[in-house]
Amino acid sequence: MTTTSTRQTTDRPVLDAETLWQKDKDHFIHPFTDFSVFHEEGCDLITDSDGIYVEDARGNRFIDGIAGLWCVNVGHGRAEIGQAMADQATRMAYFSTFNNLSNAPAAELAAKLAELAPAHLNHVFYSCGGSAANDATIRLVHYYFNRLGKPNKKRILSRNNAYHGTTYLAATLTGIECNNWDFDTLDHLVTHLSEANCYRRPEGMSEAEYCDQLVKEFEDTVAEIGADNIAAFIAEPIMGAGGVLVAPEGYHVRMQAVCRANDILFIADEVVTGFGRLGHFFASESVFDTRPDIINCAKGLSSGYAPLGATLISDEIYEVLGTPQRKGGVLSTGFTYSGHPVSCAAALKSIEIIEREAICENVREVGPYLEQRLKTLSHHATVGDVRGSHFMMCLENVADKDTKELLPVEARVGDRIAFEAQKRGLIIRPVGHLNVISPTLIWSRETVDTAVAILDEALTAATESLREDGYL
Amino acid sequence: MTTTSTRQTTDRPVLDAETLWQKDKDHFIHPFTDFSVFHEEGCDLITDSDGIYVEDARGNRFIDGIAGLWCVNVGHGRAEIGQAMADQATRMAYFSTFNNLSNAPAAELAAKLAELAPAHLNHVFYSCGGSAANDATIRLVHYYFNRLGKPNKKRILSRNNAYHGTTYLAATLTGIECNNWDFDTLDHLVTHLSEANCYRRPEGMSEAEYCDQLVKEFEDTVAEIGADNIAAFIAEPIMGAGGVLVAPEGYHVRMQAVCRANDILFIADEVVTGFGRLGHFFASESVFDTRPDIINCAKGLSSGYAPLGATLISDEIYEVLGTPQRKGGVLSTGFTYSGHPVSCAAALKSIEIIEREAICENVREVGPYLEQRLKTLSHHATVGDVRGSHFMMCLENVADKDTKELLPVEARVGDRIAFEAQKRGLIIRPVGHLNVISPTLIWSRETVDTAVAILDEALTAATESLREDGYL
Repeated sequence: MTTTSTRQTTDRPVLDAETLWQKDKDHFIHPFTDFSVFHEEGCDLITDSDGIYVEDARGNRFIDGIAGLWCVNVGHGRAEIGQAMADQATRMAYFSTFNNLSNAPAAELAAKLAELAPAHLNHVFYSCGGSAANDATIRLVHYYFNRLGKPNKKRILSRNNAYHGTTYLAATLTGIECNNWDFDTLDHLVTHLSEANCYRRPEGMSEAEYCDQLVKEFEDTVAEIGADNIAAFIAEPIMGAGGVLVAPEGYHVRMQAVCRANDILFIADEVVTGFGRLGHFFASESVFDTRPDIINCAKGLSSGYAPLGATLISDEIYEVLGTPQRKGGVLSTGFTYSGHPVSCAAALKSIEIIEREAICENVREVGPYLEQRLKTLSHHATVGDVRGSHFMMCLENVADKDTKELLPVEARVGDRIAFEAQKRGLIIRPVGHLNVISPTLIWSRETVDTAVAILDEALTAATESLREDGYL
Repeated sequence: MTTTSTRQTTDRPVLDAETLWQKDKDHFIHPFTDFSVFHEEGCDLITDSDGIYVEDARGNRFIDGIAGLWCVNVGHGRAEIGQAMADQATRMAYFSTFNNLSNAPAAELAAKLAELAPAHLNHVFYSCGGSAANDATIRLVHYYFNRLGKPNKKRILSRNNAYHGTTYLAATLTGIECNNWDFDTLDHLVTHLSEANCYRRPEGMSEAEYCDQLVKEFEDTVAEIGADNIAAFIAEPIMGAGGVLVAPEGYHVRMQAVCRANDILFIADEVVTGFGRLGHFFASESVFDTRPDIINCAKGLSSGYAPLGATLISDEIYEVLGTPQRKGGVLSTGFTYSGHPVSCAAALKSIEIIEREAICENVREVGPYLEQRLKTLSHHATVGDVRGSHFMMCLENVADKDTKELLPVEARVGDRIAFEAQKRGLIIRPVGHLNVISPTLIWSRETVDTAVAILDEALTAATESLREDGYL
């Protein structure tokens, strides 16, 4: 089902695919890439795109089932975003936002984010992506407690399998073990709680009991470390790269209550869940009924058209950050590209499109259909769990559905399924034994039908190849 | 001399300056900003730009003497960069570069950087700016030594007054004391050596003796900590935000020799010095005759038109990074926006312009003239030192030229001079008692004459106001 593009490409310069492939292989150190494969095969170049589709350098066309990487929420090829970026780049591409200077798109976007976010989050600290947003957030939280005269409130509670990025600090927040193989992380700064994994909760335990257990673990940890030593709890509303884990009902509200009771800040990492993926601009309040002290966002914020991250901060915290620590003192942190005019212009246009085309409404309508259609794949031999919410979905593959035992790593089940899907015209993301489906937010019911039909075939083919190789 | 623009602005939407100013004040948490001033006055909005000029929202036009923030090397308003970004954003704005995927501009730019950089630096790890580039570099250096079975080689030697950014790790590398007021930094990771400050070197010591002393301090520190515990030495070829400090002749070559003798990696932070500011794409080899193991760049890399950073890594280090740590293992670090297609397209076009318009040559020709003309300002009462190189210059203001004693902080001498210059149509950067001049790289001799004439008037006016207020 791989299709060669029918789109007019006459206005696009022809790329020399072979030369580019070689340049890439010789010079680009790719993130999260297996070099043994890279040295042999190099990279597939994604060169073109259009709506729900991307194309590789050989003209193969695919439905993009991962939105670039949880990013391209409004879909590909939006010329009007490109135009907004060009207009801004030509009018005023860049000037510092340090020292009481600003620019129009950064001011406009900050106000727009304050309007879209929960009512008490009115202040925006910009960065260029999720890692930097999370890193800056923890720096600001430490500054906040230092300023309050509570210099011991520094420990951050995160969760196993959380993903919060890859700066030194963000990698330390991250709880995915293999992410830090042979890398160093910070000692004593972060304590990881258990993730909320309903599929693998203890045998015989109800979801409600499981929730009790997770909340109790939090309370016990606070008691052990001491609330006076804990600055914040950070959590993704739905855990993303760690396996699209949906917490049990009521979990976030109860975790927030423990935070409130102990003067611990509650930070929501909405880098993935923000800007429509769960049907709302922000999931924290609209979906999970929480009011975080801080929300971080990136990815969907600009639909990935330009690097941008933002930390949305409560009035209460801003009160402290916005008071100089001494006469002439400045808030001495931030980036050259904090509030980059072109990135902010891209975000403003992306948000305008989300509103104009009622993309959140599309997700609320088509999302449950995607969930329902994906669940029809549960009959496949490897599919142990189909989970997620709206446009943030995942298949967990297992060797045995009763015991939930995994296939051996070398079976590469996630890769096999992704490979078979890609052969048939759909890109999904393998993450170990999982397959993540996190599409552009403009999928229609028809697209869902097409994608699920491809996945169905891909699962059949992958199952066969696993049987042939003796894994099933 | 503030001039109202004569440029045609009919094609640019008129901005509601008052509303934007209010939105900014209510919602944008600015980096490195004094909130006591901000709460009163808000920010000046820089809304338009053109070549060597920027304009504020009230139509005041200024010569941009800081290139945005050491960024806009090719000058403002380059429609062709905007167009390249729009073309790429429309064709393929974003797709992940994880998991053996790539895109054309990232591959093309990596090869171009390898061509421009010293011969042994052929491998590019992308980020979105200088902070993230430095942060990622140290992470990769730790990984490198872990992989070599040298897990104790972790300490980084940096220098007092170095500026390497504001992630948790980058802020720890940074040696400007006031940058970390009330912020936390990492313990035990970084040791700061003395900066190379020729102006304030010990009385009666020659530059050669001073260089000996600095090198000896490095050797002594290595002996004390133990080479087995030291991973790398990181340095800006000319220290930027720390005061545009030019090291004594031979310093970098000798510091590099100490590194080589002790198996310590030599990292050049060329975020400011790269892409033409000193008359060459990279200063390390072309200006300072060094061959760093790693060069970091950002800012001028894309002329600030889009957020982008890059770490250029030697073949020798890549040999280790590019070998999987175990079967199926991946180099598990990097950013969603590593190798962002639109940012890389902006950088490719900016580099094309630098080459096409011989901008490095312009800097080599006009730079010495700028140095020479700025030195004519030394007669002003406050100007203790005029220093720097080419398009990276600084005035150090003092109360007494003989003793080099500083004016009291509350005299705000840097702010006064910058204010007087801005009133007359030139933006320069106050950094405490210093004024930094780091223009777009397209200044002609005539522009230098205009800028220096303004500075001359500004220094006269600032000196008068300092006298009136009893500081001189």
